[in-house]
This record gives sequence, C-alpha cells and structure tokens, in this order.
Amino acid sequence: MTDKPFSRQEIERRQQAIRDSLTATEAFVAFSFTASYYFSGAPIVHWGRPTITVVPQSVPVFTVTSAMEAPRLESLGHIHEVQVYTDSDGPSLPTALALLSRALQDRGIDSIAFDASMTPCSNLALLKELHSTLATRDGSADLNALRKVHSEEEIAQIRKAVATSDVGVNIILEEAKIGQPESDVVAMATRAMAEFSGANYPETEMSLRCYSQQGDRTLQPHSGTGGDPLTQGNLLQIVIEASAWQYLSAVERTVALGNLPAEQDAYFDTLIEAHEAALTAAQPGAPLSAPYHAANSIFTRDGFGESPVGTGLLRGVVSEWEGRIEEGNLRGYNNTPLQSGMVMSIEPYTFVPGVGATRHCDMVLITETGNECISKAPRGRLRIG
Amino acid sequence: MTDKPFSRQEIERRQQAIRDSLTATEAFVAFSFTASYYFSGAPIVHWGRPTITVVPQSVPVFTVTSAMEAPRLESLGHIHEVQVYTDSDGPSLPTALALLSRALQDRGIDSIAFDASMTPCSNLALLKELHSTLATRDGSADLNALRKVHSEEEIAQIRKAVATSDVGVNIILEEAKIGQPESDVVAMATRAMAEFSGANYPETEMSLRCYSQQGDRTLQPHSGTGGDPLTQGNLLQIVIEASAWQYLSAVERTVALGNLPAEQDAYFDTLIEAHEAALTAAQPGAPLSAPYHAANSIFTRDGFGESPVGTGLLRGVVSEWEGRIEEGNLRGYNNTPLQSGMVMSIEPYTFVPGVGATRHCDMVLITETGNECISKAPRGRLRIG
Repeated sequence: MTDKPFSRQEIERRQQAIRDSLTATEAFVAFSFTASYYFSGAPIVHWGRPTITVVPQSVPVFTVTSAMEAPRLESLGHIHEVQVYTDSDGPSLPTALALLSRALQDRGIDSIAFDASMTPCSNLALLKELHSTLATRDGSADLNALRKVHSEEEIAQIRKAVATSDVGVNIILEEAKIGQPESDVVAMATRAMAEFSGANYPETEMSLRCYSQQGDRTLQPHSGTGGDPLTQGNLLQIVIEASAWQYLSAVERTVALGNLPAEQDAYFDTLIEAHEAALTAAQPGAPLSAPYHAANSIFTRDGFGESPVGTGLLRGVVSEWEGRIEEGNLRGYNNTPLQSGMVMSIEPYTFVPGVGATRHCDMVLITETGNECISKAPRGRLRIG
Repeated sequence: MTDKPFSRQEIERRQQAIRDSLTATEAFVAFSFTASYYFSGAPIVHWGRPTITVVPQSVPVFTVTSAMEAPRLESLGHIHEVQVYTDSDGPSLPTALALLSRALQDRGIDSIAFDASMTPCSNLALLKELHSTLATRDGSADLNALRKVHSEEEIAQIRKAVATSDVGVNIILEEAKIGQPESDVVAMATRAMAEFSGANYPETEMSLRCYSQQGDRTLQPHSGTGGDPLTQGNLLQIVIEASAWQYLSAVERTVALGNLPAEQDAYFDTLIEAHEAALTAAQPGAPLSAPYHAANSIFTRDGFGESPVGTGLLRGVVSEWEGRIEEGNLRGYNNTPLQSGMVMSIEPYTFVPGVGATRHCDMVLITETGNECISKAPRGRLRIG
C-alpha cells in the first residue's frame, strides 16, 4: 500500500482550476474532508481533528493537520507546506484554527472562499474571532462545478469500486439460498469482495459495505440488514456500496426469492423496464431529469404512481455524511445538462405499500457520444431459489 | 427488526433536559444526524436529505424529514408531528429549510439554539434568508453536556456493540495464521461478527467495521487494511469498530506475529503496562486527563517519549464524521471530571519510528465506585504463530 491515490499533475490541475474561480478572493480554504482531499490528494477524515487545505491565489498551497495524520498527508498527498498541531496543544478545533489564522495573516490573506455547505458554523464563528478582518464567501458552487465532472484518474478509482461490487452481486446470485439469514448472505458477499479487492488492488484503500432488505422492510431503503432468513415469495434488495480511496459506487439488485405473488411480480417487470429506459435516457446534453422522466413514465403507465424519489445521483467522493452535490441529483426539476465525465448511479424506483421499494442500481459514465454502464453484474429478472 | 432503539420515556427525558437549558430561547433546532437522533429516537443519516428535529419550549416537538425517511422516523422514533417533503419539491436543503422556517413562524418561534458544531454554514445562512428576524445561538455546549453522560438504555446499545466486537477479536486470535492476507483476516472476523449479531440482536441495526495494519503501516492508524500476508516478526494492530443503532464501540488489540525483534518486544511490554495503568486511573471524580498521565508516565519512563495523542475519547453516537465531543477527549490538558455513566475508549499509545504505533483499546464505563471494562476480549501479550 504505497501508491498515492492521484498524480501530482492531477492535484495541481484541481488547484489551478479553483484559483481560476477566485477572482478578487485571495484563497480557497477547504475545511471539509471532501474539499481538503480534493485539493491535497490525501483522504483524511477528520475524526475530531481538522485537516484544512488552503489554495491561495499567489503563494504555495498549505495544509493544517494533526501530528497523527501528518504521515498520511505526506505519503498520500502532494502538499509541501504543512502546519502540524498535536493533541497536547489543546482542543483540536481551536488549535487548528489558530494555526490557520496565523498562516493566513502571515501571508496577508484577508479574503477567502470556502466550502460553506460542508463546514460547521462553529468553525467559521471561531475563525472570525481569531481574524476579525477576514472576509469570507461561500465557494461551494465553484467547488462543485469542478467536482461534478471526473478526470480519468478519478474514473479509474470508481472502476475499482464497481468491479469489486460486481463480485459481491455475483456471489450472492450464485450461492445464496432460501432460508439463509440475510446477515450471513451479506457477510459472505463482503468477504468475497475483500478477497477480490485485496488480491487485485492491494495498494488501494477500499471500503466495502453490503446490506439488504426483503419484503416490507424494502420500504425503508436506508434500514440495515436484518437477521431474518431469505423467505420464499419476497423481493430481496441487495445494496453494495464499495469505495476506492473514498470514491463511492453503488451497485444494487432486486432479486425474486422463488415464485413471487402477482403484485410483486408485476412490480418487478415494471421496474426492469423503467431501469432500462432510464439507462437509455442518460445521454450527453440531455438534462439530469431525463432518466427520471423516462423511468417515471413507465411507473405511472403501469399504475404504480409517480416516484417520490429521484433516479440517482452523481457519484465520486460522496458518503451518507458529506459530499453529495445537490445539483447532481437526477430529479424531475433538474435541468442541469449531462456532460461527458459525469458518473452517476441510475436507480429508478418507487414505493408500493404491501409490495416494497426495490430497484436495480447501476453506475453509469457519460461519454462524448452516449454512456457506459460501468457495472457488469447481471440485471433484469434475477432469482434465487 | 421492529424494536425502536429507545423507549418513549427515554426520548421525552432528553427533550425535557434540553428544554431546561433553553432559558429565554424558544426552541432547540437539531440539524445534524447526531442531535436529531438524540431528540427524536430515529437514527436517520441525511444522505443529502435533511432531517431536522425541533424541541420547542412550549409546543410539541416536531421533525422535518423527506418522504423517503418518514417511515423510518415513524417506526423508530417518538415524534407525533412530522413535516414531509419529497424529491419532486426541489433541491432538498432549501425545501427542508422552507418547511422549517414556516413551521417556526407558525408557532411564533423567533429565537433558537442549535447544534452549531455539526451544522453547515450554508444551512444557517439560508435559514436566515427565509426568516430574517430569527435569533440564533450556539447550543452545542448544552447538547454535549447531555450527551456525554449515558443512560442505561444507551449503555445497553453499547454493550451489544462491544460483545460483537469481542467475537471478532476472539476469532482472529483463534484462527488467523501467519501468511494469511490481512484483508482475509478482517473479512473472516467481520463475517463472524455478522453471524453473532444477526443471531443475538436480530432487531438491532448494527454496523461492523474491522481493519488492520502491521509493521510500519501502524504509524498511520487511520489507514485501511492492506492485502499483505501476516508476516512473522511484525506487530499487528486489529481495530474493530462496531456500532449498535449508531452507538460506536472500539475494541482494538496489538498482536505479536511470532517472535518479535527486540525493539518491538520492548514496546509491547511497555504498551501493556501503560494500558493497565490507564484503566486503573479511570475513576469517578478524577479528571479526563488521568488515564493519559498514567499511561504517559510509563511511555516516558521506558524511553518511548511523550505520547503525541490522547488516550481515548467518550464514545456513544460518534463516527469519524460527526459527534465527537471535544471536552470528552482523554488528553493531558483536560480537567473535566469523569462521571458515572460516561463510556469511553481507553487506548494509550505512542509513535515509535521503525517500531509502530499499536495499542490495546477497551471500552470502559465509569461507575459510582470505579469502572467496568465492558470489553472482555483477551488482552495483555497476545500472539499469533
């Protein structure tokens, strides 16, 4: 595990791109994990110890971090100036902000843009106490304009996560049995994914998460795995969220457990048609709403009502905690155009009381001429038992 | 999976406790996952769709959430008034804040305290655009004063997570072999934990994470698992972070892989003595610094230098993303007294170039008369091979 996630050229490209957005502002200050990683190349989740990367207009980039994370910044990132604090210096947030404030003042920086959509109010309030003349503005839109289109190096990370996810789907389709506890099914898939990624990407930090729901519990898509056995007649939802260097993919599958009741059966057919329609609609130049409308017209045609949820979201450095780009949601109102280099999950579904809320979810790259479905796991009418 | 994480009485106790801190302020608004869960009883990570719980001084508690999460709020929480938005209404943050603003104005609420340490600047800025006369103050200290001491119901969740973690440690100690890839070792432990928790706590949402480092990579404690085989002569660090309904425990072990070189051998002896000293020092009424100083005096006595990191932290609803309480860190400067009902990780260590930065980490409950080490996995001089 010695490779850096990104090349120096890639990180310098990102730094220059945000400088180009600064105009009269003197620096971009990245407080969040997502933004600091984007500009430093080192994925350091804060865990109560801030890591802050500053991209000034006219002096070198620098990072404030803890002694604990400094070796990680050094080995994974591309930062030459580092300000380090330790746990002995006092509470971490005020300590880090005091270093930041002094560094800004030493460099004569009096105006900053920052990642306001991911920075706690307390950080800004405390920084302004320390540096009362500092002018601040929300730079989230500038940051997200960069983040929403991926480079080749970023896409390469996503491909690792997707290939690993496909392994998890495949082993479940091949080996899971009616009667096996859900928790055991997902543990089996997780282990297979760990073996695959360890063997194929030994120098990449991966995170693997596999969970499932069946029957009525699919109506709560963010509930965890239960201990119930796979039960004949249920729709099973498999969710695999793997990330490579924090680039998150989602590959999800709906699976029939044996023969389904008529209503579940009908929903599954509609779902498959809606999913294929959404994939087809994801074309460069079309709006982000296009996959939603394509899928939704099939849900409504078949009497399942309008989908109350979007049809997917831009992926990349995103987790359930941070990093989702609001204007990257595939929703009915979103007229943002799809562009080559965007990577998104396509996952149309709706909620049918008594039936469920299951979906197929694929990872799709928009290309110059169309799209590429990165995930290769079987889709369509899947069945166990 | 039908049980709620907490009883109605527990949630109402929390709501009343924060009301008692409000004085002239008219409501506490919980924007973050951590705070909204604390006051609603429903663990809903936002994933780009805010869930906001409001505890007013004199009218009923209410929650703003998405249609997607409303069933989860209903089934897990204790909230009777819910304002629901959908993905079709527009971008989620402005939509949720518009509902919140109207609800506050309908109730004549003009002043709020809120969880500023976990709420993005954008949320507050947008809310103030919508409700320009709203007075806001940072209520983080009031919230954390409640969160840092756990109730019996909270401790019960932590016990589930710890018991599950112990299963992971035990299987590694019993079954891992020199030569086995690290990724396979942690996958084996994760599967055993999933089986245990599925069988023993089928109605509890658990999250299981097991990772490891060995040799030089232990100097980066937050790096992930590699694919390298367990190698004779290395110190291995096993980290198990299991959570039950988002209550996070950490059980970690240092393991000798066969015979160690002299320096590693000496560090391991010192580490064990420092760990036992820190456990002994965790007594009600002593400061949170006591375990740090107890361990550190042994590290310095034996020539390993002063530890640049704290000796643990208050646990509970905390993740690497959110929820850590700064005044709950076991660090040298922290004179906050230990109280009965606090639960913390005790994990003294230091960084020794060429040797590593490994540790034993246990979960400890402060009692009226002393402490209870909740984790029961073997500690001391552990060995594989």
